[in-house]
Amino acid sequence: MGAPTAVAPTDRAELDAVDLAVRAAAASGLDGSSRADRAAWLRALADVLARHADELVALAHAETHLSTARLGGEVVRTATQLRFFADVITEGSYLEATLDSPDPALIPPRPDLRRMLRPLGVVAVFAASNFPFAFSVLGNDTASALAAGCPVVVKAHPGHPALSRRVAELAREALPAAGGPADALVLVEGLAAGAALVQHPLVSAVGFTGSTRGGRALFDLASARPAPIPFYGELGSVNPVVITPSAVEASGAEIAQGLAGSFTRDGGQYCTKPGLVFVPPSAAFDEALEDATAGSTGQRLLTGGISAAFDAGADELGTREGVQVLARAGALDGEAAPVVATIGVDVFLADPVRFQEEHFGPLTLLVRYDDPERLEAALAVLEGSLTGTVWHAPDDDDAFVAASTAALSRIAGRVLFNGWPTGVAIAWGQHHGGPWPASTASVHTSVGATAIRRFLTPLTFQDAPQSVLPAELRDGNPLSVPRREDGEQVGG
Amino acid sequence: MGAPTAVAPTDRAELDAVDLAVRAAAASGLDGSSRADRAAWLRALADVLARHADELVALAHAETHLSTARLGGEVVRTATQLRFFADVITEGSYLEATLDSPDPALIPPRPDLRRMLRPLGVVAVFAASNFPFAFSVLGNDTASALAAGCPVVVKAHPGHPALSRRVAELAREALPAAGGPADALVLVEGLAAGAALVQHPLVSAVGFTGSTRGGRALFDLASARPAPIPFYGELGSVNPVVITPSAVEASGAEIAQGLAGSFTRDGGQYCTKPGLVFVPPSAAFDEALEDATAGSTGQRLLTGGISAAFDAGADELGTREGVQVLARAGALDGEAAPVVATIGVDVFLADPVRFQEEHFGPLTLLVRYDDPERLEAALAVLEGSLTGTVWHAPDDDDAFVAASTAALSRIAGRVLFNGWPTGVAIAWGQHHGGPWPASTASVHTSVGATAIRRFLTPLTFQDAPQSVLPAELRDGNPLSVPRREDGEQVGG
Repeated sequence: MGAPTAVAPTDRAELDAVDLAVRAAAASGLDGSSRADRAAWLRALADVLARHADELVALAHAETHLSTARLGGEVVRTATQLRFFADVITEGSYLEATLDSPDPALIPPRPDLRRMLRPLGVVAVFAASNFPFAFSVLGNDTASALAAGCPVVVKAHPGHPALSRRVAELAREALPAAGGPADALVLVEGLAAGAALVQHPLVSAVGFTGSTRGGRALFDLASARPAPIPFYGELGSVNPVVITPSAVEASGAEIAQGLAGSFTRDGGQYCTKPGLVFVPPSAAFDEALEDATAGSTGQRLLTGGISAAFDAGADELGTREGVQVLARAGALDGEAAPVVATIGVDVFLADPVRFQEEHFGPLTLLVRYDDPERLEAALAVLEGSLTGTVWHAPDDDDAFVAASTAALSRIAGRVLFNGWPTGVAIAWGQHHGGPWPASTASVHTSVGATAIRRFLTPLTFQDAPQSVLPAELRDGNPLSVPRREDGEQVGG
Repeated sequence: MGAPTAVAPTDRAELDAVDLAVRAAAASGLDGSSRADRAAWLRALADVLARHADELVALAHAETHLSTARLGGEVVRTATQLRFFADVITEGSYLEATLDSPDPALIPPRPDLRRMLRPLGVVAVFAASNFPFAFSVLGNDTASALAAGCPVVVKAHPGHPALSRRVAELAREALPAAGGPADALVLVEGLAAGAALVQHPLVSAVGFTGSTRGGRALFDLASARPAPIPFYGELGSVNPVVITPSAVEASGAEIAQGLAGSFTRDGGQYCTKPGLVFVPPSAAFDEALEDATAGSTGQRLLTGGISAAFDAGADELGTREGVQVLARAGALDGEAAPVVATIGVDVFLADPVRFQEEHFGPLTLLVRYDDPERLEAALAVLEGSLTGTVWHAPDDDDAFVAASTAALSRIAGRVLFNGWPTGVAIAWGQHHGGPWPASTASVHTSVGATAIRRFLTPLTFQDAPQSVLPAELRDGNPLSVPRREDGEQVGG
């Protein structure tokens, strides 16, 4: 995707729509709203999703082929996210309100300083294919941006256009019904629209969930602007798993069944799918994994393009020297068949970049290791991932578990134990990010309370009259927000 | 500055030095150190600066032509910064330690989640010309990175090479003397070295203070890497000032004297120099400003290049249509002469980009306004700045002050009242940043407690055994850090 220097006639309408959308969002007045109002509007958006769940799930199912059970859960999750960010801004510590009293004796002298975070401006959100609710029109990026006080222009994902339009329509009815500005959320569509959105002078930040290739192209556009803007992209991730020798011996069959459930879940179309599993040779593990994979079903993937790319990638992997296909499930025409491939750790180490390519769909690659030193060498060359997993057992060598944890902590945003990375909980302490290529901005997160931090910028008032200060910074803390005063945490 | 694709033989040594420096820093083990140890090491660095102040000030004076009084104050400031970051990591809330207990009833289920921030990796710091201590080898970027647990490779500024080498030498003696790793701080020199440093695969982030042109070139290199890294650049700033009609009437002469002191201070070589002043016509103000400027002295600027650029810029400005030179001080050969130029607000509005070009040195541009609506139009087209200032009086129109404050709040990181922006206090609530071109990353700051946030990345542990958790996240909070537990702030 390049800059739209030569505009096709068919793109002209898209580009005009982007300009109108961004200007409407910028003029929405959301940045001047109170936290209490925004919290109410976020709850109204959650309510409207819940109220229309059946209609929306049906639309989503028709467009994405995901099961209605999964989609129903995702609507609940998305409403919970919206309410969660309402809670976060109500609590108020996200403002980082900080007051310092004057001290003329210091070098340099200290005036009266009062700092808090303010909204950055219009945020462009690129919706994902694989979460038509939770990372789409009213997903995490939108919820956290609105909570911050930033109006949002969503670029719809082409995989679910009707759903996107209906959710946007409902949101733009619900906002004014709750007393808020409809233009706090505007939808645009089209490839040229996406590029134009990232380059629009009034856009201040971008949230993106999608492929490494598409994300990189848009990141490059954001960075090349005359005034560059932050691009928060969540891109590719293989989510390495380390199974210790003791764990595979103690419960290899059970772990294998869990793995099969996780990598095939909803067609393996999760950014947190475990795609690279380091495991000692174990007949019990293999047998259970073969059985569980053979017993799993195919899934029609989100789009034709994703399906074709998955099939091509799985076929190509199977033809590489040193690669064996351990299991392949049956699948109906048009469905992706779950696949387990295996290689030795030395094969992995001979070409680690290629074996870390993400296969978006139901495929996982086992890497056999015997020697802990070879495992260590393999973990040392891992690229960034959203998650890393350690399966361990009570009688494990503590040093081995600690070394695996340390290695995964360097490359993953979330390190988990005796579980599977799919299913990202909504919580204050959640983190969904990681070193490149898991994200384009590894100091930030797209899930969890601090996702809001991406869309805020500090502003410090020096010796300001009370009348111009935001209420959160005034004498006496009239809104009772948590503050730091002369270095001490107080209030709230 | 381009990528070093064609390496001159003279650059080869620089590039080898960069590779050695980065590898040494990466292997220093700083990321595994405790907060208590790092705090002690930061204090040892502050002590060694203070102990060698006389020697270092003499070196700095010879290389930068800044006064020994100013440089002596800057050493105190730099030591204070190092101790401040020691206090910040001792207090511990910067870790954002956050614990959530499991709740299997939620959708999706919530496991045990424990999040805190970890060091990002090796940080490259580009030292500034104008603060040979406070934004140089042991300046704010270095102090905040070391505090975070990130080893630092400093690219010395060519304006003070001997000082840079001596400070680095003292630091690399003081660190091991205090039990720390010498390689937590390594110095490199040279233009090719700078480009190579930004592109080195083991470098995780860049802190930069300097010109918009140089900063943009390095930002582009950082963004174009195969794995992009954050580039925290503090670039250009004109620091607009609004003087209200009531303020100029009540105390025009006094404000003019303060302005002259601020824009000529240390040769006007501050990123926070007030360079663009919106003021109603006032004979008393003009007269006082002419007198104060005429009474100020010239200053030999930091480098020959800066001096030549200042003279050329001031001369060119004076030749533009509509520009009048109100005052110019006398200056000795080789010194820069303080200059006050004036334009009408309509002249400004006819070419606002050009009239916002930064003149690094003792020059300020007055913009005359009569009509509040023309002022509003001018404030609406301001680019990003580090600071914005409002001079107001007790009998001012509140709406006018509020509107000016709101306009400056959109484009400046710090908005101050009845004062001058030069002299950046060290405090929890300080912010030194702002929208492009004031900085390349306006959600972050280079001064104040949260400067440390630039060099940290979240890591969440899920269902982790106590043995692999950092002490700050263990049951019972053994290190008594402030934490958020199930949404509530506790401890500390």
